[in-house]
Amino acid sequence: MELTLSDIEDANRRIGPYINHTPILSSSLLNMWLGHDIFFKCENFQKVGAFKARGGVNAVSWSLENGERPKRLVANSSGNHAQAVAYAAKQFDIPATIFMPKYSSKVKIQATEGYGANVVLSETRDITDELVREAAMEEGVFWVPPYNHGQVICGQGTSAYEAFCEVKDIDAVFAPCGGGGLLSGTYIAAKGLSPKTKVIGVEPFNANDAAESLRKGSIQRLSGVPNTLADGAMTMAVGDITFEYLKKLDDFYEIEEEHIVYWTQWLTHLLKCRIEPTSAMTMEAVCRWLKSQKTKQRVLVIISGGNIDQVTTSRIWERDRLQRPPKI
Amino acid sequence: MELTLSDIEDANRRIGPYINHTPILSSSLLNMWLGHDIFFKCENFQKVGAFKARGGVNAVSWSLENGERPKRLVANSSGNHAQAVAYAAKQFDIPATIFMPKYSSKVKIQATEGYGANVVLSETRDITDELVREAAMEEGVFWVPPYNHGQVICGQGTSAYEAFCEVKDIDAVFAPCGGGGLLSGTYIAAKGLSPKTKVIGVEPFNANDAAESLRKGSIQRLSGVPNTLADGAMTMAVGDITFEYLKKLDDFYEIEEEHIVYWTQWLTHLLKCRIEPTSAMTMEAVCRWLKSQKTKQRVLVIISGGNIDQVTTSRIWERDRLQRPPKI
Repeated sequence: MELTLSDIEDANRRIGPYINHTPILSSSLLNMWLGHDIFFKCENFQKVGAFKARGGVNAVSWSLENGERPKRLVANSSGNHAQAVAYAAKQFDIPATIFMPKYSSKVKIQATEGYGANVVLSETRDITDELVREAAMEEGVFWVPPYNHGQVICGQGTSAYEAFCEVKDIDAVFAPCGGGGLLSGTYIAAKGLSPKTKVIGVEPFNANDAAESLRKGSIQRLSGVPNTLADGAMTMAVGDITFEYLKKLDDFYEIEEEHIVYWTQWLTHLLKCRIEPTSAMTMEAVCRWLKSQKTKQRVLVIISGGNIDQVTTSRIWERDRLQRPPKI
Repeated sequence: MELTLSDIEDANRRIGPYINHTPILSSSLLNMWLGHDIFFKCENFQKVGAFKARGGVNAVSWSLENGERPKRLVANSSGNHAQAVAYAAKQFDIPATIFMPKYSSKVKIQATEGYGANVVLSETRDITDELVREAAMEEGVFWVPPYNHGQVICGQGTSAYEAFCEVKDIDAVFAPCGGGGLLSGTYIAAKGLSPKTKVIGVEPFNANDAAESLRKGSIQRLSGVPNTLADGAMTMAVGDITFEYLKKLDDFYEIEEEHIVYWTQWLTHLLKCRIEPTSAMTMEAVCRWLKSQKTKQRVLVIISGGNIDQVTTSRIWERDRLQRPPKI
């Protein structure tokens, strides 16, 4: 069943009381340097520090609205999705068990427990996958998937929806691609509210399963854990639902690690925000796209989140990339 | 002449069109952990990335209001004050010459030039001091001082003023101490709007000239360039005007470097903001003060700015301090 703008509007109504209406920031210095207007929709200021809170809350709230009150929520995740499901469970007073690999960042485990969820740690991701499958077989348990679910997609789309209601005449919107949930939701919201706006996806070159899938016309899996600082885009494969939306995108970029570091430093500096490398990466795609534009453009960038551990932060700031200001 | 709340109100009216009304952020996780309510007034989202824009704009605007249109603004600074004066000059279309030592961070030099100021680089701070003194002797030139000036102080006080208008029943407000301008302005605003609120200053232990001055009852100078990550508090001595306000403070804390690093990591993580070590430092003082409180307190913290260079960022994130959550 095709998802439409009205599904996003429903999601927006549902999640309103539980999530932050996030701010849109701009940098006048950056706009001056690039000669275009860039608007940053800041999901780093979202509950749990990432857009994921939107999809998690919407999926659970939709289930309640349909008269199905889960007796428990379960999920497997090493990252933001774990926190999002724990957060949603707390809002609706439903017990939650989150299966996380032991190598998950301690900060994310702490936060997931902080929302009151029962966290089960396992040695490997494969074990968490098995444990969540088992747990989900029990009656009344709702296994909240990270991206390949209509209501998760619609929840994620509310970020772009909010932005399009606030900023008019956007020429293009850029979002990063992990499992494709954020991009799919962004596509539905953008094409519904502003059909002429280009919707463009961005992926790390070192984890380019989505780009490969688009080239080959079928879903491709990464062969191993990818080596990228953009940990939010390390998902092994997109889903069958999200892939259908990715195929409709106006363009898709693959970004090398050096540019991911460069833009993480610069966006952090210019916006005074904590910004995930996964989010900052999109700016390199924006600049490449702007190169081919003949007139002044208005671009929306979805900053997907701001959760970065110490090891990644330390790697990002090893060398000074602030010596050379951005330009087209 | 004693400065009063009405001087702050005048400053607030004057600078309104030129500066950001900055947001107040909170972290529900932090409040849960500490058992108190902490409100962060975020001057990192101020123009030029620091509260300094307030004082610079107010001093210049006040001078214009009094019919004295300077033919040029001059200042000497390696940091945020340089940007603030350049920014103010641009707003009022007055030429500016800023004298900066060569070792100033390239990012701050870029930004100062970005506002259209003429930047003169010198080998040492002593040379910039001499050059600005010479430049200021020319008729019609306004040498905008960094802190020891009534209208600079009143400008800086508008940050607390905005916060007190927005958040009620604040038990204590904390701000860092460099030259004392921010603390003096905060004192005037706080005692004017909420006389019962405690006003508390914070300084790095390694640059504790203000604490020494308060102990000895006269202004003490640092004997050399201090070794602290809190570069906003490296001022060699407070001023004679600001010292009078510092003497009236309800309390004053000196913070060791390890705590400055700890709180810079944690506030960055919890608030998803770029936060100067100088600002983060105040949280250690907040925790020490809260230890002696018997009831739940409402505390305002002035986050003075968010300009950090790559070298400092890299030093802050060398080791993981996020393993141990904050507690009282």
